[in-house]
Formats: sequence, structure tokens, C-alpha cells
Amino acid sequence: MTNKTFAGNFFEDFRVGQVITHATPRTVTEGDVSLYTALYGPRFAINSSDEFARAVGMERAPVDDLLAFHIVFGKTVPDVSLNAVANLGYANGRFGVPLFTGDTVTTTSTVTGLKENSSGKTGVVYVNSVGVNQRGEMLLDYTRWVMVNKRDAAAPAPEPMVPALPASVPSEGLVLPAGLSLGGYDTTLAGSPFVWGDYEVGEKIDHVEGMTIEEAEHQIATRLYQNTAKVHFDQKIADAGRFGRRLIYGGHIISLARCLSFNGLANAFKVLAINAGSHANPTFAGDTIYAYSEVLEKIELADPLVGALQVRLVATKDRPAGDFPYKGDDGKYDASVVLDLDYTLALPR
Amino acid sequence: MTNKTFAGNFFEDFRVGQVITHATPRTVTEGDVSLYTALYGPRFAINSSDEFARAVGMERAPVDDLLAFHIVFGKTVPDVSLNAVANLGYANGRFGVPLFTGDTVTTTSTVTGLKENSSGKTGVVYVNSVGVNQRGEMLLDYTRWVMVNKRDAAAPAPEPMVPALPASVPSEGLVLPAGLSLGGYDTTLAGSPFVWGDYEVGEKIDHVEGMTIEEAEHQIATRLYQNTAKVHFDQKIADAGRFGRRLIYGGHIISLARCLSFNGLANAFKVLAINAGSHANPTFAGDTIYAYSEVLEKIELADPLVGALQVRLVATKDRPAGDFPYKGDDGKYDASVVLDLDYTLALPR
Amino acid sequence: MTNKTFAGNFFEDFRVGQVITHATPRTVTEGDVSLYTALYGPRFAINSSDEFARAVGMERAPVDDLLAFHIVFGKTVPDVSLNAVANLGYANGRFGVPLFTGDTVTTTSTVTGLKENSSGKTGVVYVNSVGVNQRGEMLLDYTRWVMVNKRDAAAPAPEPMVPALPASVPSEGLVLPAGLSLGGYDTTLAGSPFVWGDYEVGEKIDHVEGMTIEEAEHQIATRLYQNTAKVHFDQKIADAGRFGRRLIYGGHIISLARCLSFNGLANAFKVLAINAGSHANPTFAGDTIYAYSEVLEKIELADPLVGALQVRLVATKDRPAGDFPYKGDDGKYDASVVLDLDYTLALPR
Repeated sequence: MTNKTFAGNFFEDFRVGQVITHATPRTVTEGDVSLYTALYGPRFAINSSDEFARAVGMERAPVDDLLAFHIVFGKTVPDVSLNAVANLGYANGRFGVPLFTGDTVTTTSTVTGLKENSSGKTGVVYVNSVGVNQRGEMLLDYTRWVMVNKRDAAAPAPEPMVPALPASVPSEGLVLPAGLSLGGYDTTLAGSPFVWGDYEVGEKIDHVEGMTIEEAEHQIATRLYQNTAKVHFDQKIADAGRFGRRLIYGGHIISLARCLSFNGLANAFKVLAINAGSHANPTFAGDTIYAYSEVLEKIELADPLVGALQVRLVATKDRPAGDFPYKGDDGKYDASVVLDLDYTLALPR
Repeated sequence: MTNKTFAGNFFEDFRVGQVITHATPRTVTEGDVSLYTALYGPRFAINSSDEFARAVGMERAPVDDLLAFHIVFGKTVPDVSLNAVANLGYANGRFGVPLFTGDTVTTTSTVTGLKENSSGKTGVVYVNSVGVNQRGEMLLDYTRWVMVNKRDAAAPAPEPMVPALPASVPSEGLVLPAGLSLGGYDTTLAGSPFVWGDYEVGEKIDHVEGMTIEEAEHQIATRLYQNTAKVHFDQKIADAGRFGRRLIYGGHIISLARCLSFNGLANAFKVLAINAGSHANPTFAGDTIYAYSEVLEKIELADPLVGALQVRLVATKDRPAGDFPYKGDDGKYDASVVLDLDYTLALPR
Repeated sequence: MTNKTFAGNFFEDFRVGQVITHATPRTVTEGDVSLYTALYGPRFAINSSDEFARAVGMERAPVDDLLAFHIVFGKTVPDVSLNAVANLGYANGRFGVPLFTGDTVTTTSTVTGLKENSSGKTGVVYVNSVGVNQRGEMLLDYTRWVMVNKRDAAAPAPEPMVPALPASVPSEGLVLPAGLSLGGYDTTLAGSPFVWGDYEVGEKIDHVEGMTIEEAEHQIATRLYQNTAKVHFDQKIADAGRFGRRLIYGGHIISLARCLSFNGLANAFKVLAINAGSHANPTFAGDTIYAYSEVLEKIELADPLVGALQVRLVATKDRPAGDFPYKGDDGKYDASVVLDLDYTLALPR
């Protein structure tokens, strides 16, 4: 009688080059989009209105890029991070074709790096994950690395291998939706007069509003993404753990911060790339999340009506972000900082 | 470098006659309807079943009128009430064509009145807001007035202007859906034998059931409506405020009370008008909401199969409504009363 | 002036043979499915992906069988169990045609048994409830029995009548979806290599993960099912009651346990029957639910590619289920056991 329960992979279960086809393909629906709206309050017009989307050349409203991210990510959890100690970082995340309701998402991952930690108890696993739609078209291609427990500390360490990753996605990697034509873009309906030309490198934007997170909200979100990591759901385990609380899925904070960024970046209608990202501190129910953005770079695209901004999106907890907290002189994150995300956004030029 | 963040309009930013096109058009979907069901538990058959709707001459189930109200209302918040001290009242609200899933809602408002308060620190702004679908057909046309902070107490007061508003929407303003034909209306499936003829002016109906509100519920609802008012979401701000709690969006109480009213008014299949309304006391998570109705007037409509009832819907908190609490001898609301809504409902005759 | 409010039926309102057509037909949508996903985190591929469903011969993803169960059940509550003291048990539950989004569900119940309790204050009501789609095709046919208060303890007891119910649904009663053809079933996408032949009678499977329930979650779920039983929603009533807490709808636990069972039974793609079930102990917000399964019987079906397992699904609260708690020597349930469900599942052979 074989044990039928899957306890997740441990560090020594991974091999560089290994390809994992993740379970549970998912057809994304209008229901998922409504829940995303109800959980974060996004107001970007292109995702909210079929009419607005059609006015800029799309067949109808595409699904929010970050909802696509969470669904692609969620599929990887049972195989990659069920025994993760920490989600260490993201890099080289490129969004491909837009996701539409009715599309079915599947995710495949390739192990691209392994490095045992000096403790011998854990190791870092690098995976490149690719989400595709039912036509096999790439929706999202990104790398993340996680610290994973070893099953047996005595198991020999593999040859260390760390993949080369770009500091940011090069402009050739930035993909605009086919047919996009911003001639019909209405900045009044989009909610702000400020377009690409109005932003300057170095500019910081306080997104002002805050959002307090409830236990039910992050659980509902995380299950919506079919992300099964126990740390988000089991208070009994948490009672015995380091924090005594259920940890909030880091992607929940990314989405909250992105939605707060509407006030200041309302015309940033699309996420083109996730260049780098880390969850600087854990978050728990009851925390109030604020956010600010810093423009890192301005990028011209082939389409003369669209420009890209490379932006640092910083989220804080329990502290309004108007004084732009980030890192101290020691290079360490301020205790209030919970997210440091470097991503690239498209705006009308 | 212009400040990109919008701090909302203050009293002196409004002028009588000013027209505001609100941002973020919204395509309403089946997902929004499901969330509305899950948040309030409505059981009106016409909104719940395509088959029932077709039996009374509609192409499929229309979206609940109050969900339409919340979406139209939500669009106005960033421009009208981000700096509101209080939402003072509603009047002359008329529902037009039904909202169906797939329709896209946009809202435009006109400032119809301004009156500075004697304190010089705040003023009352009257706005007439009109929500339309993608064909420009009116979904909802209503007036509300809000108390808004002045940016600068020293700014001169505008000429006071208060718009004339009817005490209730006249019967000519009551619009039934095109094609409605109640010959096929099934009172068993609708959940009650009582039709228009069974109700009497002065009759009070205790809706019996109560519903306790959770923080996550009102936040999920309010974000679903893309209503961004900070008071509903930011516990840090609330900690420093008058109540120490996040305030629940008044519309959340309207929907709860309307859904509770099913038990006693199951055949009131449509809201035709909102004649007047005020949020008598604030509500917070943990409050348990009860409701009762009082029939104010019976109105015959041109359609011989439909009648209208003008009804006062009163919601209370933490006190069952069986003894019909309302106002004291001093004309002030009982402390338990949180909503006093005068609206007009359609029933089979 | 008739009292318009319905206080629910009491024991003496039921007669054996009585047929009740329940109110509020319901068109099930993608929004309902998304909420179900967000509330429980199901990962069964056939319900998650239209592509996966098509690969096994279905037109698109069917709605989760337990969501169908909850919707059919919810309709019966206002007429059957509004005055219920306890939901005592389920039997002879057979799932018929699959439910698809767009279908409209109505439920009819027949009273099949009545037995007054010795106290004279309550009685047991047996109802056979049948949910059908808009074509009148049977979706679910099951019996449940509930303890209902008498309105008047002095009312005479009816002739006791207890319906004959099978210990389990016979294999002739197990219905596979028309067109089902498991040749295209992909166990990798389904999430487990273990198929029907890998399970043995007597085998117990610990589903490992736990899920802590929030007040908002069970309320949102229960309203989604239009289940109106007061005990789930009204904290004021609860304050005065036996537990001081809002009781969680028993079906919420069934769905949680079924979703947890994915880890160990990922290929159990369909619920064919509910043979018996009881809610062994009440559950409240804050409880963490775990689950295990025990294989009771292996059943061959006419389709050579499909087998059925009769399984006991046990859910516990606040205690991981790895040591399989069940009943003590006295035949009473362990205090941690909250659900004892005997059901029949279909798997690829």
C-alpha cells in the first residue's frame, strides 16, 4: 500500500535541468476577475471595461496581469515551495500574450539552479516557470528562487549552480498586446491626465491610501490562486511557529500595492515585466499596507504611442509611505518595508 | 515635476453647473452578481434565475438594482466624496433600463447645489449623478448631497444654492423594464403568496432575521464597487479618528436591509425609485443588522399586472426590529436606527 | 392585514407525502464557481479546466458536485429547517446529470417520514429533496432528516413513519456523465499517479493540510448557497444561545474536507453518491479543519475505464488527523471529529 499523500519536494529532490509539469490547469473566468476586483479594488480602465479595451484595439478587457501572475505562480507551489522556508526573489519576469477570460492556464517549470546553504539543512532552488494558454502561447515567463528544507541534512550537496539572470528585462523582452492602438485612449475615463512624458527618472510618488488586510481576505485570495502553501491557512501550525500567525502570501501584497498605485499611476495600464522583487518583511492580518513608487528608468518602445517606465514599487506596513522609507545606511530594509518590487509598466506616450 | 497623486476635491473646487465625467468604466459580469449574492444573500427570483426572468418577459435575469446603484455610486467617490465628512442624503433616484451582465457602466455627475456651513470649515455639495450603459441608456439618475471639507477655511463662500428636489419620485418617473409581462410570474417560485393587493398603507413588516457584519465582508463589497473612500479601509487612520473603527459604506447596509426584506416582501421584485434616504447612525464590523418596512403609499401603474409600493425601509443595529424603532419625540433617530430609506418597489398586482 | 413574514414550518406543519416546491430558482454561473474555488481551494482538474474536461469527453468543466449539493440544499432551508434544532443525517444521495454554468436549479422536497420525539417538544422530519436543471433532469436526489421544533408541545403526535433508506447507494444508482471517456485523462495534470487500482479496502489516507475558518468565509459561502438559517448569521441570537457563537453550516465542512482530500485522492474526479453523513460536532470560526479518508469498498462500474471507491471522509477540528481519530469504545465520536461522511467517488481505473 503506497502512501498516497504528497509531502512536497525537498531540496535533494531537485536536479538542475529537471522539468516539472504542474497540476490543475485552470480556465480563468469572469468570476475570478470579479473576486480580484473585490479583493484589491483595481481601477485600471483597460481591465475594468470591455468598451475601454475595445477603444484601444483589444477585443475585450484583458485579465489583470498580476492575476495572471498569481495563477501561474499558484500552480508551482505544490511542487516547488510546499517545503519552502522563504520565497527569496523574482527575476526576469516577462508577460507575453494577454490573458482573457475563457483561456486555460497551465504552468511548467525548469530547475535552473541549486545551491545548498552552509548550514547543510536547506538549499536554494531556482526555477524558471512558464505559464501558457490553451494555444501554448506564453503568458508569463519568470524565475524565482526559494529556500527549501532538506529532507536529510546528511544528504550530499549538489554541485552549486546559480543561473545568470539579467538585472532587468531588456526592452526587447517587453511585449505589447497584438492590435494595441492607443489612439482611442481616453485619459479622463482612465482617471488621470499624467502620461509617460510627465514622469521623470528619480520621481517618487506617494500613493497615499492605505488598506488593512483581514485574515479572510488573504485566505480567499490565496485559495483563488489554488496556492496551497500551509503557512497561509493553518493557524494551529502557526501557533507553534516563529510568528504565531498565518503568513500572508507575498503576491497579495504585490496586488494591493499595485492597486494603491492607481492614485499616481492611473495610466500605467499594463505590467510588462517583473525585473526583480523581494518580500522584505512578512505581513499578517491586521497590517495596513501603503505604497509608493520611484521611477527608475524611462524606456521608449517601438510603438510611438506607448512608453514604458521601470518603477520601484515599495509597500510598507502600518506606516504611511509619504516619507518614502526604504533601506537604512546598513543596506537593510526599514522595518516597515514589506515589498521591494522592480517592474516595468506601459503608459500612453 | 507635477504632483501625480490626486487628493480629491475640496468644497471650493466645486462650482454649480460643473460636469464631472468619472473614471473607470465598468463592465458588469456574472462574477459581480455572484459576489453580491454571497455578500448579502438576496433571494429575489427575477435576479436569481434566467428562467424566471424569461417567464416574465425579460431576456434573462437582470442585475439587482442595488448592485447597479453601488457601481454607479462608486464611480463618483474619487471626485465627489474622497474628502467627505458625511454622506447626508439621497433624493430623486430613478432607475431606468435594467442592467444586464456584459453591460458597461459609466457615470457622469453635475454639481447642482453648494452651501457653505456656518463653521466656514465645510460645505454641502449637491450632485446629480447619472449612470448609463454602453448604449448611453440611463440606468440610474439620482441626487445625493455630502458634507465636504474646505481646503482653506478662509476661502470665500460661494452663493448658496440648494436644488429643488421632489419629496418622492412621481409615478411618471417610475420605469418598468421593456417587455415585462407578469402573466408568467410564479409566486411559489418567488417565495411568497403576498402581492400588491395584500399590502396596506401604514402596514409595518418586521423582517425578523439579522445579519452580523464582518470587516472582510464590507471591505470586499466596497472594493467590488470600486469605491475608494479611505474611511472604509484604513484602520491606522481610523485609530486616530472619532470612532476608532473603519466605517462601513452606507450602501452595504442598504443592500443588507433590502435582502432581509425578502421575508415579508418577496414579491417586491424591483426597486423603481429611491425617494429619500439617510444613514442615521454609523455602522461597524460586529454590528448585527435587522430591518423592517412600513408601507407609505400604494401606487397604480399603467401596466395592469404591476403595482408599486412606496416603502420606508428602516435598518437597526444590535436590536431586532420587531417593535419598529424609529424616531423619538424629539424627532431624533433612535440610537439603534442606522438607515432610513424611502423607496418605491414594484410587485405583481 | 395578514402577517407577511414567514416564520418557517414547525413539526406539526409537515405531513407525510407533502410536496414542497422551494422558492428562488438559481442560475449557476462562473461567478459561483470562482467563489467556490476561493472559499475552499479545490484543485480537481476536471472542474478547474475546460480543456481537461474536454479531453475526457465533456463539453466543458462541470460544476463541482458539492457546489451543486449546497445550492440544492440551500433552497430547502426556508421551508424545512428554519426551525431546525439539528441537521441529523443524510442518506441515499445520488448525483445525476452534471451541473454546468448557465443551468438553472430548482428543488422540490417530499416529506417521507415524521417521528415525534419523546420530549413532545420536537420531532424528526425526513425529506427527500430533488434538484433538477431547467430541462427537468435530475442533478441530485437525496434524503436528509432534521430535528424540528414543535410550535405547540400539546399538539398531538402524528403516526410515526420512518422511511426505509439503503445503507449505501447501490452501484446501479451511480451515474457517470454522458460522453465521459477517460482515455484522454492525464494523471500528471490531475496531480497524482494513483488511480482506482492503487487503493485498497481498509486503507486510510491522512490529507495532511489544515484550514482555519474565518467568520466572513462561512457567511459568504452560506449566503452564496442562499441558505438562510439564522444560526449561521446572527451573533445577537448566538450570544443568547448554547454556544455563544455562530454555527458554521455543516456543508461548509464537507467542502473543506473534500478539498483537503485532494492530497491523497487527486484523481477522485467526481462524487457519485452520498451514502450517509452526520455532523458529529459543531464547528465555529477559528477552528482549523483537517481530514482523512478510509476506503470502505471498491466498486467496479460498467465503464471499463472508471472505478468507484466508497470512502469514509472524516474531518476533525484543531487536531491533525494523522492518527485517524474516529469513535471511542463507547461508540461515541471523538471530540475532535466534526464530520463523518460516507460517500462514493469515481476514479480512473
